Amino acid sequence: MILRIDRWLAEMPPPSDPDPAGAKVVQELMGGKFGEMSTFLNYTFQSFNFRERKKARPFFDLISNIAAEEFGHIELVAAAINSMLTDDKSIPDELAMQQSPLLGLPGIPGNPHHYVNGGKGALPQDSRGLPWTGDNVFSSGDLLSDLVHNYFLETGARSGKLRVYEACDRPAARALTGYLLVRGGVHQVAYARAVENLTGADLSKLFPGPRVPSDAIKESRPYIEKGDHRRLYRFSPDDYRQLAAVFNGNHPETGEPLEVVDEDPSTRPEPVDLPAQTDVFAPGYAVEEIAEIAERLRQQAGL
Amino acid sequence: MILRIDRWLAEMPPPSDPDPAGAKVVQELMGGKFGEMSTFLNYTFQSFNFRERKKARPFFDLISNIAAEEFGHIELVAAAINSMLTDDKSIPDELAMQQSPLLGLPGIPGNPHHYVNGGKGALPQDSRGLPWTGDNVFSSGDLLSDLVHNYFLETGARSGKLRVYEACDRPAARALTGYLLVRGGVHQVAYARAVENLTGADLSKLFPGPRVPSDAIKESRPYIEKGDHRRLYRFSPDDYRQLAAVFNGNHPETGEPLEVVDEDPSTRPEPVDLPAQTDVFAPGYAVEEIAEIAERLRQQAGL
Amino acid sequence: MILRIDRWLAEMPPPSDPDPAGAKVVQELMGGKFGEMSTFLNYTFQSFNFRERKKARPFFDLISNIAAEEFGHIELVAAAINSMLTDDKSIPDELAMQQSPLLGLPGIPGNPHHYVNGGKGALPQDSRGLPWTGDNVFSSGDLLSDLVHNYFLETGARSGKLRVYEACDRPAARALTGYLLVRGGVHQVAYARAVENLTGADLSKLFPGPRVPSDAIKESRPYIEKGDHRRLYRFSPDDYRQLAAVFNGNHPETGEPLEVVDEDPSTRPEPVDLPAQTDVFAPGYAVEEIAEIAERLRQQAGL
Amino acid sequence: MILRIDRWLAEMPPPSDPDPAGAKVVQELMGGKFGEMSTFLNYTFQSFNFRERKKARPFFDLISNIAAEEFGHIELVAAAINSMLTDDKSIPDELAMQQSPLLGLPGIPGNPHHYVNGGKGALPQDSRGLPWTGDNVFSSGDLLSDLVHNYFLETGARSGKLRVYEACDRPAARALTGYLLVRGGVHQVAYARAVENLTGADLSKLFPGPRVPSDAIKESRPYIEKGDHRRLYRFSPDDYRQLAAVFNGNHPETGEPLEVVDEDPSTRPEPVDLPAQTDVFAPGYAVEEIAEIAERLRQQAGL
Amino acid sequence: MILRIDRWLAEMPPPSDPDPAGAKVVQELMGGKFGEMSTFLNYTFQSFNFRERKKARPFFDLISNIAAEEFGHIELVAAAINSMLTDDKSIPDELAMQQSPLLGLPGIPGNPHHYVNGGKGALPQDSRGLPWTGDNVFSSGDLLSDLVHNYFLETGARSGKLRVYEACDRPAARALTGYLLVRGGVHQVAYARAVENLTGADLSKLFPGPRVPSDAIKESRPYIEKGDHRRLYRFSPDDYRQLAAVFNGNHPETGEPLEVVDEDPSTRPEPVDLPAQTDVFAPGYAVEEIAEIAERLRQQAGL
Amino acid sequence: MILRIDRWLAEMPPPSDPDPAGAKVVQELMGGKFGEMSTFLNYTFQSFNFRERKKARPFFDLISNIAAEEFGHIELVAAAINSMLTDDKSIPDELAMQQSPLLGLPGIPGNPHHYVNGGKGALPQDSRGLPWTGDNVFSSGDLLSDLVHNYFLETGARSGKLRVYEACDRPAARALTGYLLVRGGVHQVAYARAVENLTGADLSKLFPGPRVPSDAIKESRPYIEKGDHRRLYRFSPDDYRQLAAVFNGNHPETGEPLEVVDEDPSTRPEPVDLPAQTDVFAPGYAVEEIAEIAERLRQQAGL
Repeated sequence: MILRIDRWLAEMPPPSDPDPAGAKVVQELMGGKFGEMSTFLNYTFQSFNFRERKKARPFFDLISNIAAEEFGHIELVAAAINSMLTDDKSIPDELAMQQSPLLGLPGIPGNPHHYVNGGKGALPQDSRGLPWTGDNVFSSGDLLSDLVHNYFLETGARSGKLRVYEACDRPAARALTGYLLVRGGVHQVAYARAVENLTGADLSKLFPGPRVPSDAIKESRPYIEKGDHRRLYRFSPDDYRQLAAVFNGNHPETGEPLEVVDEDPSTRPEPVDLPAQTDVFAPGYAVEEIAEIAERLRQQAGL
Repeated sequence: MILRIDRWLAEMPPPSDPDPAGAKVVQELMGGKFGEMSTFLNYTFQSFNFRERKKARPFFDLISNIAAEEFGHIELVAAAINSMLTDDKSIPDELAMQQSPLLGLPGIPGNPHHYVNGGKGALPQDSRGLPWTGDNVFSSGDLLSDLVHNYFLETGARSGKLRVYEACDRPAARALTGYLLVRGGVHQVAYARAVENLTGADLSKLFPGPRVPSDAIKESRPYIEKGDHRRLYRFSPDDYRQLAAVFNGNHPETGEPLEVVDEDPSTRPEPVDLPAQTDVFAPGYAVEEIAEIAERLRQQAGL
Repeated sequence: MILRIDRWLAEMPPPSDPDPAGAKVVQELMGGKFGEMSTFLNYTFQSFNFRERKKARPFFDLISNIAAEEFGHIELVAAAINSMLTDDKSIPDELAMQQSPLLGLPGIPGNPHHYVNGGKGALPQDSRGLPWTGDNVFSSGDLLSDLVHNYFLETGARSGKLRVYEACDRPAARALTGYLLVRGGVHQVAYARAVENLTGADLSKLFPGPRVPSDAIKESRPYIEKGDHRRLYRFSPDDYRQLAAVFNGNHPETGEPLEVVDEDPSTRPEPVDLPAQTDVFAPGYAVEEIAEIAERLRQQAGL
Repeated sequence: MILRIDRWLAEMPPPSDPDPAGAKVVQELMGGKFGEMSTFLNYTFQSFNFRERKKARPFFDLISNIAAEEFGHIELVAAAINSMLTDDKSIPDELAMQQSPLLGLPGIPGNPHHYVNGGKGALPQDSRGLPWTGDNVFSSGDLLSDLVHNYFLETGARSGKLRVYEACDRPAARALTGYLLVRGGVHQVAYARAVENLTGADLSKLFPGPRVPSDAIKESRPYIEKGDHRRLYRFSPDDYRQLAAVFNGNHPETGEPLEVVDEDPSTRPEPVDLPAQTDVFAPGYAVEEIAEIAERLRQQAGL
Repeated sequence: MILRIDRWLAEMPPPSDPDPAGAKVVQELMGGKFGEMSTFLNYTFQSFNFRERKKARPFFDLISNIAAEEFGHIELVAAAINSMLTDDKSIPDELAMQQSPLLGLPGIPGNPHHYVNGGKGALPQDSRGLPWTGDNVFSSGDLLSDLVHNYFLETGARSGKLRVYEACDRPAARALTGYLLVRGGVHQVAYARAVENLTGADLSKLFPGPRVPSDAIKESRPYIEKGDHRRLYRFSPDDYRQLAAVFNGNHPETGEPLEVVDEDPSTRPEPVDLPAQTDVFAPGYAVEEIAEIAERLRQQAGL
Repeated sequence: MILRIDRWLAEMPPPSDPDPAGAKVVQELMGGKFGEMSTFLNYTFQSFNFRERKKARPFFDLISNIAAEEFGHIELVAAAINSMLTDDKSIPDELAMQQSPLLGLPGIPGNPHHYVNGGKGALPQDSRGLPWTGDNVFSSGDLLSDLVHNYFLETGARSGKLRVYEACDRPAARALTGYLLVRGGVHQVAYARAVENLTGADLSKLFPGPRVPSDAIKESRPYIEKGDHRRLYRFSPDDYRQLAAVFNGNHPETGEPLEVVDEDPSTRPEPVDLPAQTDVFAPGYAVEEIAEIAERLRQQAGL
């Protein structure tokens, strides 16, 4: 089970010019085979299906805890996509329908579901517009196979993030990939270390993989300076403490010690509240009417 | 973002005789169009994409909070499937390969991925073995459309749970559906009430839908007696408090008042630790070796 | 546009013992690549997309008219599947939920969607339970390619019907395939003849294809004796008359003249009204209540 | 079974400048989850699977009859797409191949299947190019669930039509959406009224949903003035008369009485015959040769 | 089993200006329903599943041998796509990440997987970006049905190649389609002849299909002049000799004799070695380091 | 390009009792995510897309050559499935249709496409009946990522083979998995070694993975005794010689030296010719007629 907190794991800039073509590409980080839905749901299912948890708890705790962080990652990818689809110059309600406010969009190689179905919101799809599929989940029951898979999955994810970074220049896309590259890199290290601890192999020389140096990405550097590249946060009030037994030793690239830190949500930023988009009537055709209803309901509830 | 807690939302019985054919059917509640992955991810994406959160917060809080509960539901469905696939009479490791321990399974109309790919674990698939797909998510940006959808989704989900209940008699399947019918029923009420509060319509007479009376399911009754059919738990330390502004008034079937309760995870049961299944080498071919490695790692970490 | 008539194209026997495993196989004739949804929608889209209709009307009329007949075929396949899923010994309503009325079904290699999702009804799926997909439609714009495709499609369909016939012995399945083999055979001839008329080729020696003789199927013989194997019905009050310009000459197997006949729906049988299935609450948990409501509505409407 | 008539349900303008990017978006109304194939085939399967038709005939007649109208809607969507893909300045046949007549198309964010596979014709795909799938059909056997679904389906469809209207300005796209919004709105009312008649609930205040006022769409107004927004046509020579028992009372937005009218196909417009497109050799590389063959066949048949 | 040879079946020009939009369209010839993966894998599976090979060897040999040629076709399609995605002005490694080298690509209606996932390489996808699917394979076990299918498949493939030719003007695309049209045309003849030999029908007048004359494509003419339009190469050291018993008689269009020729790989051109693309770090972030490692390994191995 | 040879890579026993339920499971080794189509087509596409082949040829040769062996593996999986579907007691032709020869099959949890569509032949599907999809191919352009993927792919494949071995006892299934486990194990070693040679990491301790000892499978032992577990065959007359530069050093489990051997097809066994199956008219309804036609064609061709 989970508790949910209305915070983001990282700061995201406010919306800039809309970039629907870029938003389509960022969808790969959401619903692609190596996107955050895949990391989130792979580790979640592996934790659900883990047998002999007590005997092998350090490994169970590692997988379960990283799964929890990944939820925050799909949230951030969604935030970036929403931001890139937001247009502050949208037409006032009463004129919207007759002025073809979405007319320019078919000419842009974006994802038409963003404006026809999704209300300028993120979708569980990849950069082609294909839906994420459960066949992206690998949960073999065999711990070693699962860990090897997870290491590979994070390697593929790192490759995708690097290329999306190169293809999109909106501040939201850059902030997103800068952050995710650091955190995904930690997870890549974590699963490699788990494999090492389980088998005795030494995987250090596989890093970085792909062989792009860590400081190649400007937007990643603040997080590296903060130490986020060698740190796992424990996303639980009281559980998953044994992950520290697996996430141990030094970072394969920098040699610094890896560490586990208790997550303190109060240090995380509050979400940006995105403005209404009248051309897709989100959150509704008459936003102020919804606001009034909400206010009245609040008063009735004494809130 | 989320915090994760190693508890289950409801008690589940220990494994009984394996029932792979039943487990295949229970998968519909996991990865089917109306399964718990759909409810979880629909509400999650709707909350990610919610615009003008401050103005419409009671609705945002309702959707966000129910999403959080749904995570616990996919966890429970997985627990039931894992339980139904567990065979306590599995052959000891060293003989496993030569004695065709899985030989009987192809003759049973189960999901072959359960034993070939999934290590006798739950999969993000439906009862046909088809993977859950992102196209199951409806997130239109239009609040009213989303709420109407959610009411319909819960109606379809209730229908599926009733029929799975009728088709499976293993204790795990019965305990699961008995619990989910009550909780899904509350969500159905919650979205209907949200539609009512937003529009002024009166949907009370749509309940129950399908028109199967609430007390038809024996395993649901303890939860009804406890009041779980008229109660939303707030799955957050400090957020989503305004959901009480929408989840108000009386239950459409019983007339009792609806209420919001702060979730206290310490009252929830601890997960059942399922035994190794040597025939699919889960969690490994040599479980005790994994246990020793884990113990050594724990000691190194001072845990 | 269409007008719909509440008749079936052929007599279907009343339900016998349920055969969910057979019903799963018959689904191939509904939603398979060579099923009736494919023939219906291929010809429908080809007719929608037909350019220069006036110049090439005999071909347009042929394709459009066969499309119309195919609607009646998906209706018949659905009728057979519904019949094979009907169980007359279903448990009375008030006890249904507690007695696990669907308990036996998971042990049968049927399609679980038939009882979990579909209410013991036909689904747009194939025999594996996979949904029919629009990628089954071939509409190239090139008349010759479309006609060659249609000849091939009917060849594949004939093969499927023969094998479903061999695999299912319920009266509904046999009546269905007996009828469809004759009608599909006519469509196979029709498209071959259209190719011949367009190119001058002689395709007669391709019949029968597959090379199973026409009288191998007992249930087809009454329709052959009636002449249905050499006859196209014109399914329109006033249109598509020029199809007779293409559907001409003799039958490639028997040498008898092909002919076009105006359809007279009054000669077709009325549908069989299938009984409620209380275990899936179809059409509802309390059928008599629905009946009373319907009666009251009728009276209010003066019907 | 059906009879087919070579008329369109509404007037469509002749082709204007081609708009392949817009045509790609209009495909959502064809093969999208909420497109016309979905409405057509949902109601068609629900009617095929309807049990106890005699007892519940008003509901059976309503669903069956709306299904019949929906066939005309997929025909109209196809007409609009074909029109938007038609280019009157296409190159004469004999030069076509060497002059790269399709060269500009890859640079436009259209659906490549429109020119590579589909011969500039409509396809059973959505706006992403993904094929329509049978999993879009909901046919639960439970009448109330099916009706609630249908109300929701029409709500989603209305949302999609509004947004496609905003995104496309070609006359064909505007005429199409203007008409479909009115007719889809009637179906939305019809299913809401059916739910009301079955349960006693009052859903009037859910209209309009989404909350875009009916007169926001200029191209819809002529149909509203004609009364088409409060009228169901009975698409059958003699059947489905009891739908009037369910489609009763007043329109939830305007208060005008709902009414059932016998369809008279002779009042519907004849289809526009679209010109050949030589660059995709539709209907063939040598159109005049096809025309001559057709003429000769007609003469041989005495037509 | 196969032996593989590092040669291409036809000459391909060196890379010119990149054309990602065109490369997306050429993917239809790779992963489309009528693409080369479909021809390759259809004939491969039919050969695997062929029963009574000895009795029917001429047909078995024909299908098996054409399958072998088709492998060379998917290789050529990949070569063309790789060429069209190659950009010789790519930025040197050390600056690549910070200069958004892929920034222009989202604005082009190409396939985002080409640069995000595929490293500017060919993918098993069609022109929509949808993956090739095993459901494209028809292997009925019935020889006549398989041969009719194969004739139709080649007809659809010829149509697709013609249209891709018209839509793309890069030298690689033109060279590819020019060659494939000739070779695919031979396969179309081969399967038609096999049907004729099996049934006695005369299909000559079906050629050309579509009815585009063979000399319409300039880039095909050199291969026609060389005789490649009437020749099957035997792609095996010693097997499949009986294909000459089926591939007999004259070419349906030109009347020239068909002939079987033993393949001599030494006459085929060597592949073009495409340059690294640093912006997608293919084949790696530091190409020279890979080259050094390779050189060292070669020396160690004495190569 | 390839040359094809009509030999199998390994001996396969003649058909025994049919086992359609087992054949369904073996399909996972054909069309599953970790099946042989995936290994074959992953390596094939990676070799097509390989940039800077000359500089990195040892790696290019390794991948290209293993791809060539994998073709022989899909051929063997097909042979096993065909064998398991063969029934020697099939009914003579002239009576086949009327005696419901396939009647027993729907009651067995097999893949209905095996008898309805596939003529008792292998299909490009997995054990659920889902088609193989191009999205199973990973070809990132980045050599290190591709090699890590390939190591993981072979790990997943080994897991699947072990479990299929345990679930099926027909001689064909056992012979198949016994052989493939050894060969797949070599490929797993080969890709690990390539990663080691590229990075300097030491992956020896990852073997075996999963941690099932190599001699646990009786049917694998003859191949191990022969040395096949430490040997790559070079499947080319003259190319791919530099693979020996990468496939070097010792076997991680046994310490024996790895070696590269030139393939000699004449040492491989000839395929088993499977008998006709009259109930699915494979290869035709009248096999002897096909045989006579083939004989006549041979004589005409002087063969």
